[in-house]
Amino acid sequence: MTADVISIDQVEHPGFRSVTAETGQPDGAEFPVHGAADVAAACAAAEAAFDDYRATDRESRAAFLDRIADEVLAIGDDLIVAAMRESGLPRARLEGERGRTVGQLRMFANVVRSGAWLGLRIDPAQPERQPLPRPDLRLRMIPLGPVAVFGASNFPLAFSTAGGDTASALAAGCPVVVKGHPAHPQTGTLVADAIRRAVTACGLPEGVFSHLVGPGNELGAALVKDPRIAAVGFTGSRGGGLALLALAQARPVPIPVYAEMSSINPVLLLPEALKARGAALGAAYVGSLTMGAGQFCTNPGLVLAIDGDGLDDFVSAATGTISGADSQVMLTTGIHAAYEKGIAALAGNARVETLGRGQEGNGCTRGQAALFQTTAQAFLADKALGHEVFGASSIIVRCRDEAELRTVIAGLEGQLTATLHMDDADVAVAGRLLPLLERKVGRILANGWPTGVEVCHAMVHGGPFPATSDARTTSVGSLAIDRFLRPVSYQNLAPALLPAELRDDAQGDGAPRLVDGALTVN
Amino acid sequence: MTADVISIDQVEHPGFRSVTAETGQPDGAEFPVHGAADVAAACAAAEAAFDDYRATDRESRAAFLDRIADEVLAIGDDLIVAAMRESGLPRARLEGERGRTVGQLRMFANVVRSGAWLGLRIDPAQPERQPLPRPDLRLRMIPLGPVAVFGASNFPLAFSTAGGDTASALAAGCPVVVKGHPAHPQTGTLVADAIRRAVTACGLPEGVFSHLVGPGNELGAALVKDPRIAAVGFTGSRGGGLALLALAQARPVPIPVYAEMSSINPVLLLPEALKARGAALGAAYVGSLTMGAGQFCTNPGLVLAIDGDGLDDFVSAATGTISGADSQVMLTTGIHAAYEKGIAALAGNARVETLGRGQEGNGCTRGQAALFQTTAQAFLADKALGHEVFGASSIIVRCRDEAELRTVIAGLEGQLTATLHMDDADVAVAGRLLPLLERKVGRILANGWPTGVEVCHAMVHGGPFPATSDARTTSVGSLAIDRFLRPVSYQNLAPALLPAELRDDAQGDGAPRLVDGALTVN
Repeated sequence: MTADVISIDQVEHPGFRSVTAETGQPDGAEFPVHGAADVAAACAAAEAAFDDYRATDRESRAAFLDRIADEVLAIGDDLIVAAMRESGLPRARLEGERGRTVGQLRMFANVVRSGAWLGLRIDPAQPERQPLPRPDLRLRMIPLGPVAVFGASNFPLAFSTAGGDTASALAAGCPVVVKGHPAHPQTGTLVADAIRRAVTACGLPEGVFSHLVGPGNELGAALVKDPRIAAVGFTGSRGGGLALLALAQARPVPIPVYAEMSSINPVLLLPEALKARGAALGAAYVGSLTMGAGQFCTNPGLVLAIDGDGLDDFVSAATGTISGADSQVMLTTGIHAAYEKGIAALAGNARVETLGRGQEGNGCTRGQAALFQTTAQAFLADKALGHEVFGASSIIVRCRDEAELRTVIAGLEGQLTATLHMDDADVAVAGRLLPLLERKVGRILANGWPTGVEVCHAMVHGGPFPATSDARTTSVGSLAIDRFLRPVSYQNLAPALLPAELRDDAQGDGAPRLVDGALTVN
Repeated sequence: MTADVISIDQVEHPGFRSVTAETGQPDGAEFPVHGAADVAAACAAAEAAFDDYRATDRESRAAFLDRIADEVLAIGDDLIVAAMRESGLPRARLEGERGRTVGQLRMFANVVRSGAWLGLRIDPAQPERQPLPRPDLRLRMIPLGPVAVFGASNFPLAFSTAGGDTASALAAGCPVVVKGHPAHPQTGTLVADAIRRAVTACGLPEGVFSHLVGPGNELGAALVKDPRIAAVGFTGSRGGGLALLALAQARPVPIPVYAEMSSINPVLLLPEALKARGAALGAAYVGSLTMGAGQFCTNPGLVLAIDGDGLDDFVSAATGTISGADSQVMLTTGIHAAYEKGIAALAGNARVETLGRGQEGNGCTRGQAALFQTTAQAFLADKALGHEVFGASSIIVRCRDEAELRTVIAGLEGQLTATLHMDDADVAVAGRLLPLLERKVGRILANGWPTGVEVCHAMVHGGPFPATSDARTTSVGSLAIDRFLRPVSYQNLAPALLPAELRDDAQGDGAPRLVDGALTVN
């Protein structure tokens, strides 16, 4: 998301009522504004619950995640209706997002069952070794401790209260304290209540999950500074993510922050693909750009192409398509205002040509799509052209040749994704670009669009700074569980004291083990 | 290591000659003082070498690591003689350390061959899936980029030029720029030349490895700030590690710092073990404490015991043993001075009783062992008693009961290790303490001593802050390779463009793969 959007949770309304996205009016239910005492209570409860929760066996913890999924579904249509009102997103999108959220919880349940996340390693003793015997050493991953999760504005379900950060932290054995996004307190509270019902049903301590809401930045800051919090998950603006990172690093005991922040997701149009289907690509591009009012972290905000056959067709098809694009309700008045400001800056930039706009919006939060064009020289000369404008805005950069294209890519900040549109005859140029792209992004895709992030094992939704604050991880997919774990080694411990999964008699429980360096699965 | 020892590389001599540890005199060979231009050249060469080096196949990269081991051995006795003079450590210790260094390189060669570090994951396409088809997604870990490694004073071989950080970074596919410790420039240069011979013999680009030396802090700071450096490995003082961490976090693009800094390694004497063999434990404790002049990160600087049978025996045996302990040459005059200062502070602290001292030292860098005792109440009241004094100094803390012992443990900073001395009848109390200890340390060992860190797969030489700057990792053992890797995902890429290890026809190459969530090894 963009740097200029609302910082963490800045909402301009006095009091704290749920806002209807389409009207920008705080006409929904009223919610308590949680403060320092609530943060302290939630963190104390999380800390108190931690040892019991992390001691749950794999099946119990998996059953808890499955139960959360069941309880979220059991809310029924009230959840979809609330999320539609608060986010302005359409029903089909939110029903799909609910499916994704539930599927994500069930995937993490199966990840927990697999035991692979335990990272078990056993180096048996070698009492006869010379000159010194080798001790018995056994390693497992343990959870870091209570995790603070910040809900995102643009995915009120899948990246919020019971979203990927919460699911992966709970899967790792960490209690979670959610700081709900103030743009959807009603949606968040419905989901939080569902999680609490699952906690009760599974006989877990209450502190395993807490939900805090409020409109100001102080709440989130207090949460990150609480000494009982051991890690932070965040999806949102660059300004918000960097502020949380600075707070976490300034603590007496610094903690990891997994902030997914900012990306313009370059789309590369390679020559043969452009020649073969420039017009079709132009129309499809605008389809991806305008989906969900462009409010995706993986929105295609930048197109890079070498001037040549098909590029004019691409540009005119994109321009034609965008002129027919309906205006769409954006998530908040703040996001809409930041979008308008970003568009105005690009439109007023002498280096940039406005190719087209979508249909004008007539509501206070309706975003009007925007398409721009510039040259590689201009793009290289003005860093501001590479900043994210969160919403349905994108810029096409025309490069003279492959060398100039490489220079533009090399100058990009870290990104979540890079997309190649290519034909078989483009393989050589794509192969030359790949090593450069690998250093810039977390996911490289061909002949598709970066929006649509599959929840699976091989997904990386992450990337070099400032796409995220920690490129060594992902916030989507099963690998996300690793963010909340750290290794502990046990040397010559009596079997009675070893964690169950590290005892000799635990082999065969399905968890993979590295025994003396050899991987065994049984 | 301690907070008060020389910061990163502060040596008081004008010019830059190798110093003889025993005399503190700069009477060895002269070495160039590298500056900003050398840093820039080394980083440019590392960056230029990166893409070729990371593209090496597993066997070639493993052969390179094996060749480094061969070349280090081929230096012969000159290396041991130089290290003895520069470090003051005895021959047997340095010969053992060379064996460990070479063994570590060969272990990482085998880790590279195994392919497990690639973290391969494949989620095949599901074109028929409803409502949307699933794309083909494939993930592998790639190296972060050029790594800066800071050599440690106390392991001139195993944690320095060709030590664990260098070996694991090279294994991951990262070029390495070593900032050699100024206490052993001759040793470091001999090893660096050996690595360069391996680079040449293996036909790799020169920039894969560079070695910089110099006495000031500016050199290391310039290295960490260089935009081409992607990660930092450091073993040394808390002050030095925190300074590098701050520099790394303040960069326009922050980078991970793996700093192993400070630990006093609590040793817990459980009641039944103490009753059964208090005197024997006391003598063995001093043996571990005084080994290598106490200059180990895992030195037992803190003993925790509940007052009861056997504790007096332990204390009097330890006191008797230490009084006979020879003085030993310490690594540098700076480290010796910091040690003396730390001892004087403890000896002059009204809350602390000096139990005994070792034999007086008559050289300018000879350290005299020191043993102190205090109560849990006093230890809890004065945080300074929990700070590391780098060298053969340790403090015994008498607790009234298990509750007070728990309070002391809960108040400790993060540590590398915790040691339990226990009998079968201590299992219950040990079991109650384990969850608390797991949250404080990286390694828990029973009935041994924390010095002696096995290089293997299940080792964790790491732990919560400030033992290290990143508890999610280890700096010893095969897991250390993960510090220098990050995941990249490939979506719908043509086989011709996929990395070889992610192609369908690569299955069977011995690397484990997670295919659709199921682990396969073949």
